Amino acid sequence: MRLAVDVSGGDNAPDAIVKGAIEALEHLQGDDTLLLVGPEDSITKILREHSIDDPRLSIEHAPEIIGMDESPVEAVRSKKNSSLVRMCNLASHKCENPIDAVISAGNTGACVSAATMLMRRLPGVHRPGIAITLPTFHGPVVVCDAGANPEPRSSHLLQYAIMAETFAANALNISNPRVAVLNIGSEEAKGTKIIRETRDLLKEAPGVNYIGYLEARDLFDGVADVVVTDGFVGNTVLKLAEGLARSLISNVFHAIMEIDPGMATQLEPLAKKLFSRNDYHEYGGAPLLGVNGVCMICHGSSESRTIANAIRTTSQYVREHVNESIVQRLAEVAPVVEPQLKALAASAAAADSAA
Amino acid sequence: MRLAVDVSGGDNAPDAIVKGAIEALEHLQGDDTLLLVGPEDSITKILREHSIDDPRLSIEHAPEIIGMDESPVEAVRSKKNSSLVRMCNLASHKCENPIDAVISAGNTGACVSAATMLMRRLPGVHRPGIAITLPTFHGPVVVCDAGANPEPRSSHLLQYAIMAETFAANALNISNPRVAVLNIGSEEAKGTKIIRETRDLLKEAPGVNYIGYLEARDLFDGVADVVVTDGFVGNTVLKLAEGLARSLISNVFHAIMEIDPGMATQLEPLAKKLFSRNDYHEYGGAPLLGVNGVCMICHGSSESRTIANAIRTTSQYVREHVNESIVQRLAEVAPVVEPQLKALAASAAAADSAA
Repeated sequence: MRLAVDVSGGDNAPDAIVKGAIEALEHLQGDDTLLLVGPEDSITKILREHSIDDPRLSIEHAPEIIGMDESPVEAVRSKKNSSLVRMCNLASHKCENPIDAVISAGNTGACVSAATMLMRRLPGVHRPGIAITLPTFHGPVVVCDAGANPEPRSSHLLQYAIMAETFAANALNISNPRVAVLNIGSEEAKGTKIIRETRDLLKEAPGVNYIGYLEARDLFDGVADVVVTDGFVGNTVLKLAEGLARSLISNVFHAIMEIDPGMATQLEPLAKKLFSRNDYHEYGGAPLLGVNGVCMICHGSSESRTIANAIRTTSQYVREHVNESIVQRLAEVAPVVEPQLKALAASAAAADSAA
Repeated sequence: MRLAVDVSGGDNAPDAIVKGAIEALEHLQGDDTLLLVGPEDSITKILREHSIDDPRLSIEHAPEIIGMDESPVEAVRSKKNSSLVRMCNLASHKCENPIDAVISAGNTGACVSAATMLMRRLPGVHRPGIAITLPTFHGPVVVCDAGANPEPRSSHLLQYAIMAETFAANALNISNPRVAVLNIGSEEAKGTKIIRETRDLLKEAPGVNYIGYLEARDLFDGVADVVVTDGFVGNTVLKLAEGLARSLISNVFHAIMEIDPGMATQLEPLAKKLFSRNDYHEYGGAPLLGVNGVCMICHGSSESRTIANAIRTTSQYVREHVNESIVQRLAEVAPVVEPQLKALAASAAAADSAA
């Protein structure tokens, strides 16, 4: 297996990325290799600093850098020598021998654009979606989409359910994952038109363990394994959970520190454990489901251990043939929901022409 | 001041509601009175159980009950003798001497529908929005809309900003509130078309202290006082924060209990304090901004203290003449943004006819 890592992406690049790749070496199996994509000089320098000379690591020189604030599509079109574009080109099926996966902690929008434009989509997929694994006290919950597609159609949301369910089953070993649609109430009439359409599609789709609507307050209660939502809401949920968990845990321990510093010292290992259980760094990365290849997107503030964890989960994703299962599941579902999707398209067209 | 309370609304109705009204008596000023709206028999029974015979409490008999799962508009149209409909009719300006405010912990959708249909809107308001006050360690943050309008236009979001800012300034005593738009990134190009339109309107609106986009992870960091978003996202944020805070705090204290039960006992008052700081019951209710009158919506699981707190904040809202200030602020802003709103309407019409 050949995995490529974007050395220029993320707030702590390039050091944390190269260091993460070095830490990941112990997780590699058989003849797995890591390709470090970025400015050759910097990479060589960091490897030398850590006295690393390992045949499983190689370098692909990519001098250009895409900033965190750059317009995604523009950046991908104009910066052919950026690590992101170079990496996704190497993973494209236009290559004779494409690499197996790409991993980046860079500009998420640019990563989605580069992967979608250069690696293309899996057969049958309309729009790729990011599947983020949220840690909860009841185990992981996969939320899809977490930001690739802020205004999806119901046909996209149906595919997010099927792709994320396949990911949860194959890569996270959750058997028969319970799939829910995030909504602002549990009653059937609640929410937007797109949500009600998605519910109808999921009820029809064969082999989906659809359990109904889920309200955000129950997201952490272990009632669903896969939660489907649009990219705007999914991204908001992810960032809110991150911000609130950090704020709450640190405030609890600050309050204890004020009452009794000795007790706080005693509880320090617990605080660390709780932080790590609620910490996206532990999961490493979120797959961009639906691209023809494997693209793992990491948090912008990834540390070396985040990257090492992302490399580990990426190799698991490749090894378990998640994409092959996704293609198969989509092909099973497509003919069954086709009449419904056609009716939805026709009613949307009628509404447009009436307007 | 005359306030009406929906005795039939909420998971703990009617007992918690009547009890909350009794607890609120000590907060009433001058000749303030409370009207208990619901089944007369039940109300009389509860008052007798608590040996309450106070001239400031009176009863309005309303035998019908609107369930939590009923379709809002249907229920409001058909159940003329429900507490909600009766109460909103008494607050309507069609009455010779309308009551000053209504308070309900019942079906939120039905409450929004009843208030909007029967009390009507303030002059200049397009769509009412719920302004929820989220407790944070840095003080309160007002999020509007929290669920009245899941798919608003940018002109609605502009009004939510102005109404919530006025509420924060006048009822919560926040001077020159900082107004932000919730988005999935801080860059100008991020988000949906409606969000970018709202940003442009807020930049133009006179007297608004607009500070830019806010990501959900920063919601609890005290950088904004008023956060504008659509009702779907606002409701999701509210429920997620509620669920995650409950789950995190209780897990921290359970973990401490396992390590050292004595320490846990010692920390119990702290746990209680943290729960209450992160507890919606403390704020009592969320005003439905934009209706012609005062409508305070309480959480479905309101306890008596929630209702008592809601009565207190409602009387504050009435006393500070928040609605008069809202009407004045909207009238100041309307002529300035009118050309922009006309251009948006024209481009939406052109897009519709091109489709």
